[in-house]
Amino acid sequence: MSATQIALAGRGHLAFKQPPVLTSWATVAGKKETEGPLGRHFDRIVRDETMGEKSYERAERKLFTGAVDLLLSVAGRHASDVDLLFAGDLLDQIVTANFAARDIGIPLVGVYGACSTSSEALLLSAMAVASGSVRRAIAATASHHLSAERQYRYPIELGVQRLPTAQWTATGAAAFLVEDPAERESPSAPAKGDGATLRIVSATVGRVQDYGLKDPNNMGAAMAPAAADTILRHLQGSGRSVEDFELILTGDLGRVGHPLLEELLAEERVHPRERLQDAGILLYRDDQKVDAGGSGAACSALVLGAMALPRLRRGEMHRMLLVATGSLHSPRTYQQGESIPTIAHAVEVEAVR
Amino acid sequence: MSATQIALAGRGHLAFKQPPVLTSWATVAGKKETEGPLGRHFDRIVRDETMGEKSYERAERKLFTGAVDLLLSVAGRHASDVDLLFAGDLLDQIVTANFAARDIGIPLVGVYGACSTSSEALLLSAMAVASGSVRRAIAATASHHLSAERQYRYPIELGVQRLPTAQWTATGAAAFLVEDPAERESPSAPAKGDGATLRIVSATVGRVQDYGLKDPNNMGAAMAPAAADTILRHLQGSGRSVEDFELILTGDLGRVGHPLLEELLAEERVHPRERLQDAGILLYRDDQKVDAGGSGAACSALVLGAMALPRLRRGEMHRMLLVATGSLHSPRTYQQGESIPTIAHAVEVEAVR
Repeated sequence: MSATQIALAGRGHLAFKQPPVLTSWATVAGKKETEGPLGRHFDRIVRDETMGEKSYERAERKLFTGAVDLLLSVAGRHASDVDLLFAGDLLDQIVTANFAARDIGIPLVGVYGACSTSSEALLLSAMAVASGSVRRAIAATASHHLSAERQYRYPIELGVQRLPTAQWTATGAAAFLVEDPAERESPSAPAKGDGATLRIVSATVGRVQDYGLKDPNNMGAAMAPAAADTILRHLQGSGRSVEDFELILTGDLGRVGHPLLEELLAEERVHPRERLQDAGILLYRDDQKVDAGGSGAACSALVLGAMALPRLRRGEMHRMLLVATGSLHSPRTYQQGESIPTIAHAVEVEAVR
Repeated sequence: MSATQIALAGRGHLAFKQPPVLTSWATVAGKKETEGPLGRHFDRIVRDETMGEKSYERAERKLFTGAVDLLLSVAGRHASDVDLLFAGDLLDQIVTANFAARDIGIPLVGVYGACSTSSEALLLSAMAVASGSVRRAIAATASHHLSAERQYRYPIELGVQRLPTAQWTATGAAAFLVEDPAERESPSAPAKGDGATLRIVSATVGRVQDYGLKDPNNMGAAMAPAAADTILRHLQGSGRSVEDFELILTGDLGRVGHPLLEELLAEERVHPRERLQDAGILLYRDDQKVDAGGSGAACSALVLGAMALPRLRRGEMHRMLLVATGSLHSPRTYQQGESIPTIAHAVEVEAVR
């Protein structure tokens, strides 16, 4: 294919020759997330985690639609201006995305990547826009601590004791608008404040990894190999070294998985040092009783929207790699004694002025 | 974007200027499916539906990997030749696709669209290839009657009586290879037998529809509006009329949903007549006790691979539209009294010599 817009840069690695632009984003965060270090950077705060709904599942859906509505408002767009919605969540049959998309009305491509959903939806949005098939796509995800706990572990009303290696599913939602760079020039599409233009220049689709770990209360350890594989393949595919990035943001390895990832990368003589940070560690303070750190589809999405993208926008950094990770088991596969397969997808964002 | 390869032909509609080629496919079918009208057209037959595994979930996974392995063999490819795998299934957290992708090793984009997965994965594969970001992608899905029944309804061991409007989840799997037309020319990529070249020329992403129906034993009625919306939008986006298609293959409306779709289209003065056929009706004989017809992620995929694509290949027809439909509820949303949101994605395939 001669007039290709996306270079062939290796298996599973997508390099966008005419990079789509990440123009706007919106975050909605729960109470505990707001009490963390990023608290004042969220666009909207939800103190009542039932959101006036009769179930946690309906509350989660409201977080999702809230983030998309806020994004459209920030971007000065209507839902009818957006061609595709790439979305998913943690609940069985991704009912949060499905029911929310019914109310939002944008054509839906439902995805499932557990806590890697943020980067999976972002890379598909970028692929769609870069290919010229759509002008504008939204990537969105949500998670809710109380709906996830009762689906994956126990209803919190049971008071089952948590293990120190367990991670805390974040309550929140985030949505990201990816646009054709030509579209962005139009007067009706203002950037979110002044600052740099954020381009999605490449991405790497994850391969499923499984080191035989079986403990859903220690997902950080299970996910570290997936993050390592994707980071190494992204470096190979893009021809970059870790020094080219000011931030490599994983999500959500937590305090157990993060040092394991450092070890796995060191075995390949890759030493990202302080530029390697984890959304599961960044989202909460040490004293917030979240055990090994945050998790959930919203975790990396919230840290991306509240911390990483604003720093790129303000020119405080120029290139980052989002590496959201996901545990791909189900409660049933755990009960059946299966190990936990994991995945990580990478999205590279650069700031240009 | 000037050098665009995919025309902007309306919201959610994707027109591929340099259409990807659907070069090979493989189907694996269960015992009951083999006893139906398409029985002798499946590539592989599985008579023991446990497949020697200790759970139905593991058997379903084996159906999936069996279809992908067979496809690679038919296409003369190795897994390492394929850039991306777009896959999903009906089980919670799409564990069939996730665990199978671990064993197959191709980078995975996990999707969820319930019984619409076949067309969702196919359109994403086409979008990826048409964009030039990958040379070769596989779209695959599977379902298993016994794993689906116990997740969505009751374990069949309970002997709960089935309702006449209920549909029968098909046991089987299918995989489709979508390639860059330039790649296909290479001598190592033989077409599946002689015959026409099959091109994916356009697709339409579904919008979630919900007419307030709540009965998971009558999903055909709930899905008919989604099929109607997508067919009408595809006709509008592509500028074609129903007469341009020799086959509009929905899946899986069954005997209840199929006439409802005809009514909904007639209200818009669209009369596809005998060219409108449903995979849920085609897969089984009338006397096979499947109530209102077949369903499941494998249903439309099996009919596509065993009947529709071979007819295109042999020149018996020249243009078809696959419109796989999905019910996007979960057992929990049903228990919580929610209605059933539904979706349909369309993929247009044409045969050229």
